[in-house]
Amino acid sequence: MSSTIGERIKTTVFGESHGIAIGAVMDAPPAGYKIDFDEILIQTARRAPGQDPSATARKETDTPKILSGLLNNVTTGAPLSFIIENSDQRSHNYDGIADRPRPSHADYAASVRYNGYNDIRGGGNFSGRLTAPLTVAGAVARQILKQHRIIIGGHVLGVGSSFDEPFNPVDISVDMLENLNKQYFSVISNASKQKMQAEIADAKKSGDSIGGEIEIAVVGLPAGIGSPTARGIENVISSAVFTVPAIKGIEFGDGFGLASMRGSEANDRMYFDGDTVKCRTNHSGGITGGISNGMPLIVRCAVKPTPSIALEQDTVNLKTRQNDKLIIEGRHDPCIVPRALPAVEAAVALALLDLISEVKPL
Amino acid sequence: MSSTIGERIKTTVFGESHGIAIGAVMDAPPAGYKIDFDEILIQTARRAPGQDPSATARKETDTPKILSGLLNNVTTGAPLSFIIENSDQRSHNYDGIADRPRPSHADYAASVRYNGYNDIRGGGNFSGRLTAPLTVAGAVARQILKQHRIIIGGHVLGVGSSFDEPFNPVDISVDMLENLNKQYFSVISNASKQKMQAEIADAKKSGDSIGGEIEIAVVGLPAGIGSPTARGIENVISSAVFTVPAIKGIEFGDGFGLASMRGSEANDRMYFDGDTVKCRTNHSGGITGGISNGMPLIVRCAVKPTPSIALEQDTVNLKTRQNDKLIIEGRHDPCIVPRALPAVEAAVALALLDLISEVKPL
Amino acid sequence: MSSTIGERIKTTVFGESHGIAIGAVMDAPPAGYKIDFDEILIQTARRAPGQDPSATARKETDTPKILSGLLNNVTTGAPLSFIIENSDQRSHNYDGIADRPRPSHADYAASVRYNGYNDIRGGGNFSGRLTAPLTVAGAVARQILKQHRIIIGGHVLGVGSSFDEPFNPVDISVDMLENLNKQYFSVISNASKQKMQAEIADAKKSGDSIGGEIEIAVVGLPAGIGSPTARGIENVISSAVFTVPAIKGIEFGDGFGLASMRGSEANDRMYFDGDTVKCRTNHSGGITGGISNGMPLIVRCAVKPTPSIALEQDTVNLKTRQNDKLIIEGRHDPCIVPRALPAVEAAVALALLDLISEVKPL
Amino acid sequence: MSSTIGERIKTTVFGESHGIAIGAVMDAPPAGYKIDFDEILIQTARRAPGQDPSATARKETDTPKILSGLLNNVTTGAPLSFIIENSDQRSHNYDGIADRPRPSHADYAASVRYNGYNDIRGGGNFSGRLTAPLTVAGAVARQILKQHRIIIGGHVLGVGSSFDEPFNPVDISVDMLENLNKQYFSVISNASKQKMQAEIADAKKSGDSIGGEIEIAVVGLPAGIGSPTARGIENVISSAVFTVPAIKGIEFGDGFGLASMRGSEANDRMYFDGDTVKCRTNHSGGITGGISNGMPLIVRCAVKPTPSIALEQDTVNLKTRQNDKLIIEGRHDPCIVPRALPAVEAAVALALLDLISEVKPL
Repeated sequence: MSSTIGERIKTTVFGESHGIAIGAVMDAPPAGYKIDFDEILIQTARRAPGQDPSATARKETDTPKILSGLLNNVTTGAPLSFIIENSDQRSHNYDGIADRPRPSHADYAASVRYNGYNDIRGGGNFSGRLTAPLTVAGAVARQILKQHRIIIGGHVLGVGSSFDEPFNPVDISVDMLENLNKQYFSVISNASKQKMQAEIADAKKSGDSIGGEIEIAVVGLPAGIGSPTARGIENVISSAVFTVPAIKGIEFGDGFGLASMRGSEANDRMYFDGDTVKCRTNHSGGITGGISNGMPLIVRCAVKPTPSIALEQDTVNLKTRQNDKLIIEGRHDPCIVPRALPAVEAAVALALLDLISEVKPL
Repeated sequence: MSSTIGERIKTTVFGESHGIAIGAVMDAPPAGYKIDFDEILIQTARRAPGQDPSATARKETDTPKILSGLLNNVTTGAPLSFIIENSDQRSHNYDGIADRPRPSHADYAASVRYNGYNDIRGGGNFSGRLTAPLTVAGAVARQILKQHRIIIGGHVLGVGSSFDEPFNPVDISVDMLENLNKQYFSVISNASKQKMQAEIADAKKSGDSIGGEIEIAVVGLPAGIGSPTARGIENVISSAVFTVPAIKGIEFGDGFGLASMRGSEANDRMYFDGDTVKCRTNHSGGITGGISNGMPLIVRCAVKPTPSIALEQDTVNLKTRQNDKLIIEGRHDPCIVPRALPAVEAAVALALLDLISEVKPL
Repeated sequence: MSSTIGERIKTTVFGESHGIAIGAVMDAPPAGYKIDFDEILIQTARRAPGQDPSATARKETDTPKILSGLLNNVTTGAPLSFIIENSDQRSHNYDGIADRPRPSHADYAASVRYNGYNDIRGGGNFSGRLTAPLTVAGAVARQILKQHRIIIGGHVLGVGSSFDEPFNPVDISVDMLENLNKQYFSVISNASKQKMQAEIADAKKSGDSIGGEIEIAVVGLPAGIGSPTARGIENVISSAVFTVPAIKGIEFGDGFGLASMRGSEANDRMYFDGDTVKCRTNHSGGITGGISNGMPLIVRCAVKPTPSIALEQDTVNLKTRQNDKLIIEGRHDPCIVPRALPAVEAAVALALLDLISEVKPL
Repeated sequence: MSSTIGERIKTTVFGESHGIAIGAVMDAPPAGYKIDFDEILIQTARRAPGQDPSATARKETDTPKILSGLLNNVTTGAPLSFIIENSDQRSHNYDGIADRPRPSHADYAASVRYNGYNDIRGGGNFSGRLTAPLTVAGAVARQILKQHRIIIGGHVLGVGSSFDEPFNPVDISVDMLENLNKQYFSVISNASKQKMQAEIADAKKSGDSIGGEIEIAVVGLPAGIGSPTARGIENVISSAVFTVPAIKGIEFGDGFGLASMRGSEANDRMYFDGDTVKCRTNHSGGITGGISNGMPLIVRCAVKPTPSIALEQDTVNLKTRQNDKLIIEGRHDPCIVPRALPAVEAAVALALLDLISEVKPL
């Protein structure tokens, strides 16, 4: 019942897939930060639908209209709000759609939650389209963080059985992250990207979809951000990242890999690099006790294959109370991972902005 | 800066390892629920330190003293508060401890966060000891949930390279969960437990520690609990579970396994079991769109090896500003996973109690 | 830094007087309530500027555009969001305005708070114009409450030295409140209204402004809503009502009048009216221990004279660091009380909706 | 359902009048502040029951036991928690008490709210005794604020028809406030205090009680603290102050007095006092647009006469469902105003600490 990320700087996302507009309110970015609108558009372009895998021209849809909070492109300290108009509100035929919930979609759970009053057209409030305002808000947060030299970047770590090179967790350059930040379907190794694209094409050909993994790094985050117990970095980032539909797992540092390690292997040996405390390894992913330790922050998350597939599926008919079959019409992304990436980065950015504002005034 | 789990029913944990007492306030369980104190003690016993692997006699330490919120063992609707006295406040020699932070412990990050004012004795507010009040609060939450026929249970899924049988996600009996709930180091297969214990003994012999995994299931959770966006079940549970120290990853349903699946494989086919909507598989772990779908809830998390090991480690000396060596004195758990289990279950219970009270009055 | 009213159902107001649009997000009204758009317009009309005292025709300005949360005029359970476009964005000359803060306006305090980055045009985020989305959100809340037979109504209790008849706190009819709810400048006695209008005209003639009082009643609120300590009705309503600019005091029941009473006089004697527990008097204003007792809720608040007056005033010049003089240009309401009334009612409605959803599911 | 004051630094009060102990958790004061325990005791002594009007010796009851958050009397940054043991848990005869609710007490409303499960002994969670932990937490907050030269002080402004001199809102010395802070039943004019005491004695003689008013000032609060809309100083202070039982009204600056003023009279003319912006008058009570303007903060609140009186009263019998009579046994304060004063000051302190930590790091 709360569409809000953050406790100090609260971003509330709103809208339904087939309403007039979607949008968000950020309450409130600190005053005095210059926000470059073109940088926002770079992020929304990375998330936009209908891109060719080679991600050519930016499409002019999904351009946010800023309603408040900026004056001459500088934050005023008042809530920063914006909307994105829904251009495609064509009156699809949704009759009977509510009767046969799509497997592994929110349809059935939502109809129980809202007694059938929820807007099911295009997924309504559950639509992946809600990641558009999330990405915009994240783009604002990223620009504020960047002015404190905190850079967030990510890549598609894997699709199906194909994997990109992971980040080197002790040595990630700002240039590399900035470069990833400008691309659709960002990867470190273009060779691995071709394999991923082949897997996607293969799934598409079968009328199927495919899942994947996302890896995100943050450099420049000073030590001492976060709190123990319930406001640790892991708590706050995970809570934010799960707002992105299809995310089903998250890990920090070596994450699940730590489960089979010994302490002597997992512990990050400390040393002075000049006057800076650093670690030789970064199994902890830059976080100990919920608090940043000055090493790069490393987050990975699992993205399930989009449940919208072209194949016939078993479902139930809530009207006839009988088992039924379903074929989902329309065109659907065979792989949502590349488009989910900037949304997850945005969630991380909002979480960090919130945590930093708890410790240091911005 | 917030040691609070929950938005509707808020549990705030407090205390430091070497203070007079630790405790928690639950603000506030609904009025009119009977709470059995012995059931609380069963949970605290599962978490208590110093147990032999075969977990014999319950130790009478860590008994909470209820201060408010119960009258004749029934919740009054007022904040339920309790403390657990710290029996072991002996004046260990902590001189110089602050100068050489323990690798992969909170020490260094916390000293930056709190400008060196944090209580480092025994880990202070970062101590695993804080999971004792968490477990007590969770035991209260579990009893309330149980009165609505919602049962939470878990087991040690793995230690190092040894694994227990996982839950069958479409068929988990209440009896099985109730049985797991009474044991220290709960497992499904005793044979696998012996392997885990051997790995622990081996790590201990080397002065080392070892990590593992925890798996938790919830049965009886009705469909329709949770919300999209930021108050989804995954958001709220993950935020709560990361309050348990050493947790570095969390996944729901097939989690990271979904990343390599196709939609046709991952989608849970729906059918009517009598008049109840069910799924043939449960890759989604009982959650779609952030909302429960009536199938068992499945959560797994990764526990890193405890960073306190007996071996000499590289660290820094914050006083001399030189690289230094460190040997951590004292006895330490070679494997924290069995003791973390009831704490993670408690976090899940508090998260669910919070979510349910959002949708249905208790 | 939080423009949000409510903890369970959160209404976040956004916008600046001279931005593209203002608006609000309600996160989220319960699903399944029919919302009549015309009833919303009745409330915005009561708040709209530029009305003749006799308040005839509704003006079509300030019409909200609903973006999400309603489907066929019924709440979906998703965030209900709307915007109101700012028609008057003419480029007034605001040069030098920031240098000479208007006495008793937010100008100086805000410039310190936001380091001068705040949008000062038309008061920016501090503008009384922000009460338009508040009034719309309140109109939605009122309709939901009305479907539970909870009716909120209010009147201008006083302007300057002229007073309306107060409510009879033990006998307030729904019809009376409904009638007040339809009018601009609602009063119980039309004779007293004429006196108030005369005081306003007199102030206006002198280029001055004048303050007043507002009284609000709620009937149909069941006993048992609210909580002790920090979520009492008084806490939540007062916190909401002070979001309306110019409010400087609030009291419940006999409020400040109780300070000079004895207990024997102030205590509300209880009796059975049929099977309903009632009180002979209602000095407590329907609230004891922070919780409703079934009697009508009575709230009064003080509205300061709008600080925008035509007379020359002493101020400072923040640029020259010298004392200076100021004449505020433009037309200003000589008395803001009638227009503040529906906004205060809206704040009360949002506070009650929030409190009720804590106790009873809607 | 939330006994918590504050959003950034959260103070949760817990306990019931006849439980083992009452207490609070502050989550969390900033690290590194020295807290003098004797100064805490001075505040609890001002609130303690059973004092002679001349308030000589401090009684050693109500001494808090600090459980966490302090190390060598310095805040650690972890939650600061404490309990106060309830010495008087004698088993009074409470049979039948629940059947006949005390007029204008919480009894009836609470029994509906909690379905009769609430602890009615001594008022339970509604007891004025809960102001003891509030006062302790406030004493901690005051010491932190004082280290930033922000001083809070108050006095009994009135009892019945007798009034103390009000603060001069443009000229309040730190010495005066510090002096008031050390006394029980603080007043500016001792002559007026004698009149108040006479009114109290008179009420007591009649078996009655009497209400009054409290006035609080804050000096040293820098301009720029607070936010517009819902996190204004008035919103946050009022929400906190209404946690003190018996408060039924609150006003800032001239408050209700502003309702009959003209703008030309109410506006505070600005000038430079050296390089500091000041106002010639302080009708706004130091707050414009919800934000501090650098002038002293002025708050007044109304305290109703305690509803516990010795006279026979009309009530209902919830068991027999008949009208009934009630005589409240035991000794009761004839006037709660002097003892409420330090609790209200504490609420103001906690509200300001919360607001300041939003704007400036502490």
